[in-house]
Amino acid sequence: MADHTTIVVSSGDMDKLYSALIIANGSLSMGMAVSLYFTFWGLERLTKKGLAKGPLSRMNLLGLGKAFMKWRMKKANVASLERLMADYRDLGGKVIACEMTMEIMGLRREDMREDWIDEYGAVGTYVRDARQSCITLYV
Amino acid sequence: MADHTTIVVSSGDMDKLYSALIIANGSLSMGMAVSLYFTFWGLERLTKKGLAKGPLSRMNLLGLGKAFMKWRMKKANVASLERLMADYRDLGGKVIACEMTMEIMGLRREDMREDWIDEYGAVGTYVRDARQSCITLYV
Amino acid sequence: MADHTTIVVSSGDMDKLYSALIIANGSLSMGMAVSLYFTFWGLERLTKKGLAKGPLSRMNLLGLGKAFMKWRMKKANVASLERLMADYRDLGGKVIACEMTMEIMGLRREDMREDWIDEYGAVGTYVRDARQSCITLYV
Repeated sequence: MADHTTIVVSSGDMDKLYSALIIANGSLSMGMAVSLYFTFWGLERLTKKGLAKGPLSRMNLLGLGKAFMKWRMKKANVASLERLMADYRDLGGKVIACEMTMEIMGLRREDMREDWIDEYGAVGTYVRDARQSCITLYV
Repeated sequence: MADHTTIVVSSGDMDKLYSALIIANGSLSMGMAVSLYFTFWGLERLTKKGLAKGPLSRMNLLGLGKAFMKWRMKKANVASLERLMADYRDLGGKVIACEMTMEIMGLRREDMREDWIDEYGAVGTYVRDARQSCITLYV
Repeated sequence: MADHTTIVVSSGDMDKLYSALIIANGSLSMGMAVSLYFTFWGLERLTKKGLAKGPLSRMNLLGLGKAFMKWRMKKANVASLERLMADYRDLGGKVIACEMTMEIMGLRREDMREDWIDEYGAVGTYVRDARQSCITLYV
C-alpha cells in the first residue's frame, strides 16, 4: 500500500471539483502522490472551455448565485479552481483523462487543456493506481 | 489488506452505474476480487424492471437524450449495462443487496433479479468486505 | 494501515446521510475507529436547524414524500438520523467540521450543534485520518 491518493472525478459540480482538488493538494503537500482520473462531467471541465465554465452546479440550484458564491469564496481566501489546478500541477499531481468518455462525448485531444493532462487512459490505468492507494474516492 | 475492490452502489444514474461496473470489471480482469453492495436507487436497478429502466439519469437532464446517448455509446463500442453485468457475473464478481433498503422500498425477493444476487446483507456484510479492500468507493 | 473508516460527508441528502451514519455505526460496532468529515451541504446538517431539516432530498424529488418515507422507515425499524448520530457519538465516533466551508457559508460556531463536533479542521485533518484508513468514502 503506497502513500497515494486516487480520485475519480466524474462530476462537474463546483463543490465536488473543490473537494477533489483540495484533498488532492492537501495530500501532495503532506508528501503523498496523487492521481486524478477525470471521466463523464468531470472530463468536460478539462476542455478548453475551462474549469469554471461547466454546467450549473448544485450551488446555483440551491439559490446561491455563482457570483455570490465566488464573492464569498474570495472573502474566505479560497483559491479559484484554476488556481487549485495550477498548484496541483506544480506540486506534481497527475491527471488522467478517460479515453472512453472522450469518445462517447465526442471530445478530441485538441478540445482538451492538454497542458493539464499527463495521460489518456482506460480503466486499467485507474485500477493500477487505485489498488496501490491508501485513499480512494469517487466524487 | 487483500486485493479486493468494494463499491457501494447507491445511485441509479446511468453514468454512476457505468462507472461502478467498468471499475468492477477492470478490477476482476486484473485479478482482484470485487463486491458490489447495492442500496437505495442502485437497488432499484436490480429489480426485474432491469438495469436500463431506472429513473431519469443526469445524462438526460443535461439534454442528451437517452437514445442519442445509447447511439454514441454503441458507436464507441461501449457495452450495455446488461452486458457489463453479465460479464461481471461471469468473471466472478459478487453482488450484495441491502435488505434494509428492500424493506424501506417495499421490495420483495421475487421483485428482484435473483440470478444476479449472491447475498442479501446488512452493513456488517459491507464492512466485512470493505475493511479488507484496497479500493473502496461510494457511487 | 489502521482499522479505521473515514468518510467525507459533503451531501445533505437524506439517503447519503443514512449511508454515511449506517456505515459509520457498523464500522464502530465491528471494533473500528471512525472519522466523519462534514463539508458543504453535509455541514449544513450539523447546524442547530438539525439533521432532519436539510434541503429537499433526492427522495422527495422522486416523488416519495418525506412523511411517507419516514413512515416506511419507522415500519422497517430504521432509526432516525438524530438517533443514528446519538449512537455514533456514544460509540466513540469522531466528527470533524470543515472550517473553510463554515467561512464560505457564513456559519459561526454558535450556529453549530457543538455537542456533536470534536474538532474544527481543514484538509490536513482529513488526510491525517484518511491515509491511515482501510475504508475511505466520499458521499
